[in-house]
Amino acid sequence: MTSINIKEKFELFDDYWNPRIIGELNGQLVKIAKFKGEFEMHKHDREDELFQVIKGAIQIEFEDRTETLNEGDMIVVPHGVMHKPSADQEAWVLMFEPASTVNTGENKESELTRDELDRI
Amino acid sequence: MTSINIKEKFELFDDYWNPRIIGELNGQLVKIAKFKGEFEMHKHDREDELFQVIKGAIQIEFEDRTETLNEGDMIVVPHGVMHKPSADQEAWVLMFEPASTVNTGENKESELTRDELDRI
Repeated sequence: MTSINIKEKFELFDDYWNPRIIGELNGQLVKIAKFKGEFEMHKHDREDELFQVIKGAIQIEFEDRTETLNEGDMIVVPHGVMHKPSADQEAWVLMFEPASTVNTGENKESELTRDELDRI
Repeated sequence: MTSINIKEKFELFDDYWNPRIIGELNGQLVKIAKFKGEFEMHKHDREDELFQVIKGAIQIEFEDRTETLNEGDMIVVPHGVMHKPSADQEAWVLMFEPASTVNTGENKESELTRDELDRI
């Protein structure tokens, strides 16, 4: 139970779309990932997901529109909603979601799937 | 389901130790509050609580030590752990915790208790 600096945690890795766990509470995980390029469209049938942009900017494409999030912005994507994150330039993103959440949602066999996450 | 800017939400109120709700997911609330001065020592018997400093610096006093959190730092306080937040200067703090969490913990009759929170 010590404080951590969120940006320092991002300095510990370089790859994209590969979330690390930096905290856990009430069955929820705090994860961080670097985004660059396009992720795949997916949904989580049961889990709501929060994205908070720590550095840079991201887009989240929904079926009917695209939201842009800049540094300091956050959004909650409700369960069941198709969404596709992307980032033109490297962006640092904090996520808050249940421990059961898989990054590619109901598609657990994607090459982008990361289901064993490191804690840093 | 639109993105929000966290710092802009802090501009909507001026009082201290009075959390506002800015998001909800998976039975958890995202709250923000301005801290200044000393809160009271308390604990939550069942709920873990995350503090993330958006602006300024805070201290969290535990029974055996005090942690200082600067901008960009976060900490998870596990359920059952006595803690007393304080801030020498105004600080802006984001909290993640279950919807059931009361700010003064098991002491629900404190003059600091806020159990009906506005959504902004």
